[in-house]
Amino acid sequence: MQEVTTYIQNNKDKFIEELKDFLRIQSISTLPEHKEAINTAAEFVARKLKAAGISRVNIFKTEGHPIVYGEWLGAPGKPTVLIYGHYDVQPVDPIELWDHPPFDPLVKDGKIFARGATDDKGQLYMHIKSVEAYFKTAGSLPLNVKFLIEGEEEIGSENLEKFINDNTELLKCNSVLISDTELYEAGVPTLTYGLRGMSYMEVELTGPSQDLHSGSFGGAVANPINVLADMISKLHDKNGRITIPHFYNNVIRITKREKENYKRLKFSDKKLARELGVNELYGEKGFTTLERLWARPTLDCNGIFGGFTGKGAKTIIPSMATAKISMRLVPNQDPKRIAKEFTKYIKKLAPNSVKVVVRELHCAYPVLTPLDGKAAIAASKAMEKAFGKKTVYVRDGGSIPIVTVFTKKLKVPTVLMGMGLNSENLHSPNEHFSLNHFILGIISSAWFLQEYSA
Amino acid sequence: MQEVTTYIQNNKDKFIEELKDFLRIQSISTLPEHKEAINTAAEFVARKLKAAGISRVNIFKTEGHPIVYGEWLGAPGKPTVLIYGHYDVQPVDPIELWDHPPFDPLVKDGKIFARGATDDKGQLYMHIKSVEAYFKTAGSLPLNVKFLIEGEEEIGSENLEKFINDNTELLKCNSVLISDTELYEAGVPTLTYGLRGMSYMEVELTGPSQDLHSGSFGGAVANPINVLADMISKLHDKNGRITIPHFYNNVIRITKREKENYKRLKFSDKKLARELGVNELYGEKGFTTLERLWARPTLDCNGIFGGFTGKGAKTIIPSMATAKISMRLVPNQDPKRIAKEFTKYIKKLAPNSVKVVVRELHCAYPVLTPLDGKAAIAASKAMEKAFGKKTVYVRDGGSIPIVTVFTKKLKVPTVLMGMGLNSENLHSPNEHFSLNHFILGIISSAWFLQEYSA
Repeated sequence: MQEVTTYIQNNKDKFIEELKDFLRIQSISTLPEHKEAINTAAEFVARKLKAAGISRVNIFKTEGHPIVYGEWLGAPGKPTVLIYGHYDVQPVDPIELWDHPPFDPLVKDGKIFARGATDDKGQLYMHIKSVEAYFKTAGSLPLNVKFLIEGEEEIGSENLEKFINDNTELLKCNSVLISDTELYEAGVPTLTYGLRGMSYMEVELTGPSQDLHSGSFGGAVANPINVLADMISKLHDKNGRITIPHFYNNVIRITKREKENYKRLKFSDKKLARELGVNELYGEKGFTTLERLWARPTLDCNGIFGGFTGKGAKTIIPSMATAKISMRLVPNQDPKRIAKEFTKYIKKLAPNSVKVVVRELHCAYPVLTPLDGKAAIAASKAMEKAFGKKTVYVRDGGSIPIVTVFTKKLKVPTVLMGMGLNSENLHSPNEHFSLNHFILGIISSAWFLQEYSA
Repeated sequence: MQEVTTYIQNNKDKFIEELKDFLRIQSISTLPEHKEAINTAAEFVARKLKAAGISRVNIFKTEGHPIVYGEWLGAPGKPTVLIYGHYDVQPVDPIELWDHPPFDPLVKDGKIFARGATDDKGQLYMHIKSVEAYFKTAGSLPLNVKFLIEGEEEIGSENLEKFINDNTELLKCNSVLISDTELYEAGVPTLTYGLRGMSYMEVELTGPSQDLHSGSFGGAVANPINVLADMISKLHDKNGRITIPHFYNNVIRITKREKENYKRLKFSDKKLARELGVNELYGEKGFTTLERLWARPTLDCNGIFGGFTGKGAKTIIPSMATAKISMRLVPNQDPKRIAKEFTKYIKKLAPNSVKVVVRELHCAYPVLTPLDGKAAIAASKAMEKAFGKKTVYVRDGGSIPIVTVFTKKLKVPTVLMGMGLNSENLHSPNEHFSLNHFILGIISSAWFLQEYSA
């Protein structure tokens, strides 16, 4: 291991330059005009896997974006870990808020700024580099490794799910390792054992068949924007609790042990409020911020649109108004059931004066992984060695939908060993990734291979 | 008068051809590239006024578009009427929804289709033609006439207001006559005696200093869209009444006589609902639709925007959400006071978890003109003679801001003798004007000059 970590330390600059090359590829999965960049990113990953020493690498075409698969099975009798990551990134809008172009990576103050830096190109690249370090020093890996890198994580992983269903034999393993989550705090090794799920919905209200003059018709018809606002308002009660019937059925209560663990983390509401630029935090009454973020479901409008939104005044009553509304779910809420309850409730809230259409855009299951498994213990130890500190145990408010598929189809536990920070602007302008955590992540990954092989 | 009306009937086709020439001029006031067309339209009006027999005509330059002024004061001892109209028109977007080019006037099914046909070129031209009919037959007018035709009505009449302030002596008159409103129904002579005013506001909420990942932060911060929806929802109570404190102070109650008058108009809710494509009408409880449209203030969101509004799902909590909210006001609500009350209330409704900015975009005073004045009675009689039917008395839900300036600065009543229909797509694609109402309007105008001179 000494040689491996020395190799990593000596090749820092090279690794960062390579990551820059990766980040220059504009692999936005949701935009059709970026299809070529998506292919370029897949080829980049495949090439780097081969260069690192992974003997067998394939790019599998799908109905959507390609899946890169690689394996090295030269350690018979040893466990097999499947490393998952994604090479696709979020759109860059609003582009005018970036201080530097999103696909022109910039290293500044020990961070690398670019779309995808922390989510997830930077994090997935750590594992390719730890494997390279083994091959370049020891000439082999201490266990069997499979890589599964997709290009549709930001748009729902639909084709990956199909691929896993069709290839359970190929993907057979003892555990899945993912770095797409966050450290509790800079420099603190963190194992994530819970993820929230999601139901992402779209609501479309139609009032009059065309935009109307607000003078001639104001007072005669229901205004779809006002109606939509009213309906959205009714989705929470005054305590911030979601009012959808049966919504909280099946929500697993936070255990006493968890509550104590959360308290030990000494989370500061004031600090977070300052970081986010708000006067005060806000959420469901009766729960601490960490409880609300990790173990309680939420409902947020992700977008709203209706009527005239240009400069100045246009006096219309719009024909339509729409909103995107998503719910973050916790174990054991079923996103499909929640989507149905939401739809039913929205239709009930809509007055007869408007027509309403509800669409289900996306669903993800919540996850809770055991902490006493071999892989989880190995990850915890690996990070402690890399960081020189005790690992903390947290949940994450976000979703990684594919984790449920791994659990259900491959029937193995997933270890979430993320190196991001929630202050790194993932999905926002000026996304970045700490280069210190990037290197510590490579070392942690290398230690994991070692620990898990023992 | 027999000769005058015969002249009008005999020259119908000529009048329509001239109106077509007027409608061909692309005098869109809001677009700088149409500046030349604006000048052409002003010159067209001046030329036609002179040709009609108005001896003194001037085009006054302003900081914006020119004002055409004309006068014939050859009837000393008789009253003076100031006829107001506007030669500018709305933009034509969305151009693809026009069945025929907006500046290529088309006569079809007894209607003339073109931008500006009903608002206001067709309506203002009626008065030029009635004056012509007098001069060509009787050789003079029965009273003194002043014309004030502007080119900035669709963009706020800013320079006209200045012009009126600076020229009260020049514009001195006994009443103002405007044809820029609508008939209650096709073929029904209509005197409009009330207009609503307006306060048009913009509300901007800021939560976190940037868009956040809804997984990482959902549950920790107030979402500006949800907060805005909640605030908008609170602007009305469950009876559709506006909740802004002191909002209804000064609202003139609907008189018993007005209520009875409204009833006589036999307004059909079902018919309007069908025309607008809604299941049912909606508005403040306790008032009929006509009462709500004409004599009750309203509050409508004209636009709303926040977060991600593209195709598909983006999981953010947006940093900002904005809404344009306008209130139609009735006598004697003061739009400036209402704007202040609105601002105060919005700031009170906004929780400490967001920052709020309120902007006042536009204000217009409501109008209620006396029906027992000499000019109003003359207009009512004139239309009865032209249409051969009893005149009905209505209010209009829209605003004509300049009317208040006439009232305040010239201290005379305004008579609203419009010949449009609310189905004539003013401000929309396929604007048109009934040629029957165009001719009846010329005859009504001629009768007005006669009746008002008596």
